[in-house]
Amino acid sequence: MASAGEFGCIDAVCRDLLYRPELVKLGAGDDGAVYVSPPGTDQVISTDTMVEGLHFTAETMAPADVGWKLCTANFSDMAAMGAEPAQLVVSAALPETLPLAWLTACYDGLRAACRRYRVNLLGGDMTGSKQGVVLTAAVVGFVPAGQAVPRSGAAEGDLLVLTGTVGDSAAGLEAIFRGRAGDFPALAERHRRPVPHVEAGRVLREAGFRALDDITDGLASEANEVARASRRDLLIDAARIPLSDETRRAGEAFGIDPLRWALTGGEDYALLAAGPAEAVRRAAERIPLTVIGRAGGPGGRVWLRRDGETRLLPRIGYDHFRKTP
Amino acid sequence: MASAGEFGCIDAVCRDLLYRPELVKLGAGDDGAVYVSPPGTDQVISTDTMVEGLHFTAETMAPADVGWKLCTANFSDMAAMGAEPAQLVVSAALPETLPLAWLTACYDGLRAACRRYRVNLLGGDMTGSKQGVVLTAAVVGFVPAGQAVPRSGAAEGDLLVLTGTVGDSAAGLEAIFRGRAGDFPALAERHRRPVPHVEAGRVLREAGFRALDDITDGLASEANEVARASRRDLLIDAARIPLSDETRRAGEAFGIDPLRWALTGGEDYALLAAGPAEAVRRAAERIPLTVIGRAGGPGGRVWLRRDGETRLLPRIGYDHFRKTP
Repeated sequence: MASAGEFGCIDAVCRDLLYRPELVKLGAGDDGAVYVSPPGTDQVISTDTMVEGLHFTAETMAPADVGWKLCTANFSDMAAMGAEPAQLVVSAALPETLPLAWLTACYDGLRAACRRYRVNLLGGDMTGSKQGVVLTAAVVGFVPAGQAVPRSGAAEGDLLVLTGTVGDSAAGLEAIFRGRAGDFPALAERHRRPVPHVEAGRVLREAGFRALDDITDGLASEANEVARASRRDLLIDAARIPLSDETRRAGEAFGIDPLRWALTGGEDYALLAAGPAEAVRRAAERIPLTVIGRAGGPGGRVWLRRDGETRLLPRIGYDHFRKTP
Repeated sequence: MASAGEFGCIDAVCRDLLYRPELVKLGAGDDGAVYVSPPGTDQVISTDTMVEGLHFTAETMAPADVGWKLCTANFSDMAAMGAEPAQLVVSAALPETLPLAWLTACYDGLRAACRRYRVNLLGGDMTGSKQGVVLTAAVVGFVPAGQAVPRSGAAEGDLLVLTGTVGDSAAGLEAIFRGRAGDFPALAERHRRPVPHVEAGRVLREAGFRALDDITDGLASEANEVARASRRDLLIDAARIPLSDETRRAGEAFGIDPLRWALTGGEDYALLAAGPAEAVRRAAERIPLTVIGRAGGPGGRVWLRRDGETRLLPRIGYDHFRKTP
């Protein structure tokens, strides 16, 4: 990095940036980029950071994976509002000793995700770091006016659904740590190249779901977010939580209850949604969905039924879940 | 930070976030915040990062200054497009050992700037850091459709103007390093609490300026950006570059040519603009302006006239400027 300098680094990554050019009036390279909002839409904004040594290491992820996953984390926040990501800016704090090839590979991953989800890279900031890489992206998306889906809309009797399996990313990380990534390639891939459920978010919004969240911090944490925001108790049936066969096999191989990965692992980016049975029926015609429980009366807590017992599931997750008082 | 936890930290700063509430449909706290764009506008986006140990230290800036300046850096990018900042997200990577009081004070500075410039704090991300604080903000602003002012519009014969003095921030930093901040309080303030020229940016746009940039990296660097983007040679008269009396006095006290601070110091956030004489006349009725030079024929380089000599002024600044070939 030191030899290339700031401008050299910027030049190295500034190409092939626009994947939804019809919304852009002025791309990266000026003080700000200029874009347009599609008529009849509300705008949605979010930001996510990845820190070397906390979110990734050279052992767990290649640089292109880091770029891809930074996008997934941000795009998933849009999906979790029923919105489409459209514009992205990326700020990189980089140690002087970082090889320029790391940065260009990271941007290859960013570009691959932006191309796949039609998001424009509208520039960013590049600066030094005292220790390790710190990458922050901010994303702007859009949703038909008045139709963003918050976490807070779950109503009594709503069904709770997931748009994919959970626990795979945490199981994959465990396999990587144990040097067993080769035995569980799909799980390692789920950790390194998770996908945001953008299309599913749109389908759920159109089908009439009224609460939506993405699985960033594990099902336990996210279910509690929905319960608290909606002021409803939620009841989840452990037996219905969708686990992949490979995650089950990894659980057996490592002697770990795979449900723990699902509840507390996170970074799966499946969507958790609540809606009436009619919405579930409509959405299930278009995307795979698993019903895992339902919303109950006023409250704000999450209950997990497993093996005939129902226990409180706290936000901090399965490991700490305590008996019904 | 460690004892408060992520949720405790978020709770500590999540209050008084909306200063332009008429544009917000859903504030911070969900996966994304939802806002509206004023009708008839284009959207402008930018991001800026501040790294402890590079952009600030405990010696040079109080935590509230850091929050304020992060906003200024971002809002100034909007001003430099002729746009108004409206929405902000902030990502903070924080060491475990950081006192929670540092964070709340930093957010007090953020809030003060957001209140002053009517910008909504629409949430963000909070995570750990391996060393030092890394703060990134992304800002979205708006400008009447089709009227954003890029760097690239300077035309032959345009006058070059500055909307304020330059060099004060660098002179202030020098005073702080020398333990002389008390002798040069206005300069230290210009380093710690610089202001973005948002109103001036609007006036320049309305007056018909066609190239606009903010002084982030020093006048030499920014003038070269305008020259290169506009493919014009620029000629600057050193004697007309506006220096404050206090910066001149600091130069004398420290034995440093104050023009060096102006050309290579940066972080002044004054605006550099190019426009026809008629635009200068119109704008000068509303805001203070100093004409420092003019745009010449095709090219892309900057020339500095000083004491009867005209020399090339490279992007890297005054210290390295070489004799006319």
